[in-house]
Amino acid sequence: MFTKLERIKRDIEELAKFNSTPGEGLTRFSLTDADRGARNYLKSELSKLNLKVYEDAAGNIFGRMDGKDKKAPSILIGSHFDSVKNGGNFDGPAGVVMALEIMRVLRERNVVTKYPIEFVAMIEEEGGRFGSGVFGSRAMTGKVTYAQLLNNKDSEGISMAEAFEKFGFDPREIKKAQRRPEDVKAFIELHIEQGPILESEKKDIGLVEFIVGINEFEVTVKGRPDHAGTTPMNMRKDALVAASQLVSNIEHFATEAGNGTVATVGTLNVFPGAANIVPGKVTFTVDIRSKKKSCIEKVRKQIESKLIEIQEKLGLSWDIKDMLLVDPVEMSHEIMDIFEETAEKLGFSYKKMISGAGHDAMVMTSITDTGLVFVPSKNGRSHCPEEWTDYEDLQRGIELIYHTVVKLGEVE
Amino acid sequence: MFTKLERIKRDIEELAKFNSTPGEGLTRFSLTDADRGARNYLKSELSKLNLKVYEDAAGNIFGRMDGKDKKAPSILIGSHFDSVKNGGNFDGPAGVVMALEIMRVLRERNVVTKYPIEFVAMIEEEGGRFGSGVFGSRAMTGKVTYAQLLNNKDSEGISMAEAFEKFGFDPREIKKAQRRPEDVKAFIELHIEQGPILESEKKDIGLVEFIVGINEFEVTVKGRPDHAGTTPMNMRKDALVAASQLVSNIEHFATEAGNGTVATVGTLNVFPGAANIVPGKVTFTVDIRSKKKSCIEKVRKQIESKLIEIQEKLGLSWDIKDMLLVDPVEMSHEIMDIFEETAEKLGFSYKKMISGAGHDAMVMTSITDTGLVFVPSKNGRSHCPEEWTDYEDLQRGIELIYHTVVKLGEVE
Repeated sequence: MFTKLERIKRDIEELAKFNSTPGEGLTRFSLTDADRGARNYLKSELSKLNLKVYEDAAGNIFGRMDGKDKKAPSILIGSHFDSVKNGGNFDGPAGVVMALEIMRVLRERNVVTKYPIEFVAMIEEEGGRFGSGVFGSRAMTGKVTYAQLLNNKDSEGISMAEAFEKFGFDPREIKKAQRRPEDVKAFIELHIEQGPILESEKKDIGLVEFIVGINEFEVTVKGRPDHAGTTPMNMRKDALVAASQLVSNIEHFATEAGNGTVATVGTLNVFPGAANIVPGKVTFTVDIRSKKKSCIEKVRKQIESKLIEIQEKLGLSWDIKDMLLVDPVEMSHEIMDIFEETAEKLGFSYKKMISGAGHDAMVMTSITDTGLVFVPSKNGRSHCPEEWTDYEDLQRGIELIYHTVVKLGEVE
Repeated sequence: MFTKLERIKRDIEELAKFNSTPGEGLTRFSLTDADRGARNYLKSELSKLNLKVYEDAAGNIFGRMDGKDKKAPSILIGSHFDSVKNGGNFDGPAGVVMALEIMRVLRERNVVTKYPIEFVAMIEEEGGRFGSGVFGSRAMTGKVTYAQLLNNKDSEGISMAEAFEKFGFDPREIKKAQRRPEDVKAFIELHIEQGPILESEKKDIGLVEFIVGINEFEVTVKGRPDHAGTTPMNMRKDALVAASQLVSNIEHFATEAGNGTVATVGTLNVFPGAANIVPGKVTFTVDIRSKKKSCIEKVRKQIESKLIEIQEKLGLSWDIKDMLLVDPVEMSHEIMDIFEETAEKLGFSYKKMISGAGHDAMVMTSITDTGLVFVPSKNGRSHCPEEWTDYEDLQRGIELIYHTVVKLGEVE
């Protein structure tokens, strides 16, 4: 193989050091000290390769290798370098390290392509800090405005605009991060599977055909706070009991919709939140995903029906605030063909599959041909300290993309 | 009447000014600036009456009027002056103002009793800051140790011992707050009902016969955190779905136990707590109350059975940590007789009742004869900004206790 296992391992381990919760998994929120550390590491490695290193107005990091044709559109390769709270070392960095290793091999082998090739490491894909995910790719596709930067706030009330300014970026320039479709030839991402399928079916590589659609929203249920000792059970309007009736049914709704539809309540907050007060208000998030838009809509409708039932039965009121609504998308057939052909040639076993997670690749389909490669996740785990991908598996994914990039880039 | 409506109203309104959340109800946590303000107001008012004003090692405030018999045990009157988060003006202060007004009338009328009479305003009854309620009375009955002060921490990790020290009290002296049974003749508390019964039955006053027992504990349910998009529904160990199955059944358990038993889940926290992560851990509190110990035990057992069922069905583990376990208690028959006789004489309508809330009176029964008077709560509301008691109702409660104290105190 052209790629080097020890370099891949070292990159993953070095990036894992930039972490705000050592000993409790990896936490690297955007525009923090941990972000700064990882950013400097990546820029330093890219600089060693004599690439044009720059950051766009959204804080995404690039390392550009010019093509023979100076005006040709770029092939972008990479993923995100932020993480969830208390996550692992691979979700995001695996794809960033893929791009870094490929740039190294291109330089080592003095490969010259017609099309420019750009390393990209994107920020805030998880939405861990500011609550609004796939941020870096949304900025690159022109979907982020300055007004949104003022509105998106972290748990301490700091807006993204403030955070950008403090970090040295001008948030008013955010639109400059936009890439035009005519300037981009393709985007290829590598990501850990974050599920158990490749491991259980003993496949080296997953080739993604579709990425699921997502509807994420916040539900507020309002009852009435009362004293927990003096209010008879039949005179209460307990917002948590009401919310629990919905949460305990959510598995059923998703299973019933079929087509691998999943639904999750991942956060839930109780107000006022004291052991001796009947909950007066509860807010919780719902995340529904499916490869079929109609299945997402079906689960959403069942949740709304359940809320109406709770309202009528218990006299509570409710409200829904949409946070994310993304349609399912399809990856490029052309890139898929090159992936398959290359995998056959290299002798890697692969499976064509559906991605259950949203990725920057999903957003990038709006401006360019996109490919997404999965590598196996040990025990299907992710977003936790136990998240793991064997370096040999990661290397196979990188090797596959290397050959694909060389093919797409057109070496004369 | 001997008591004065305008003084009662002024005291309530003045105390309500010492509040860390103006505009969002009254929040007066122990050993804070709001505590200091209320404390200074009370000490200043007591000083005007030429009483012996002092604070014990637990931070409870006293104003003592000596009796003719210098060695006779004291009659203590009062309640607590802390509040829940975003609560109202009456829960606690109503009984503190009762004691203050009675001391004023005793002085005005130059009443001299055989037994000393002591005003008492107790701290941290709600456990709002340090999580462990009826603190002032537990310290007075010798139930608090220095080790506990080191252990009880607020949400910022400040221990009660640190907070005491910063406030000017020596936490190592906590045992000095203990009152011996032979030094206390009686304790009489006035409190708002915090329930709808007196108002709906149009009674002036509630005379409490029993205070319910309480079992408060924290349940932890441990599942496995997974990615919300890539983990099929049937491969999850979702701690929140499991907890919801319990919470949605808790009303049913309490109703089934009968005898006015109530059960409440007032707090619930989800870990790691992100919209796109299947909850790996949930902690929540359960508060069970009943006048019958056996009913509390029955609900507790049903909760444990449900947890075992969840463990077997979903493969999650769980754990219970006890926070509060108090048996139901009975108030003094002698004091009840004086209350009834006095109410008849004054022409106040009254109802003998059960208290569904824990009170300092409950704890004080372990060292002395105890009486507890309820005054009506508007719409039964409490622990919220809307908490209200008409001043005329409060005055009737105070007047009743004034006559009871004079009788118990033995004027020659």
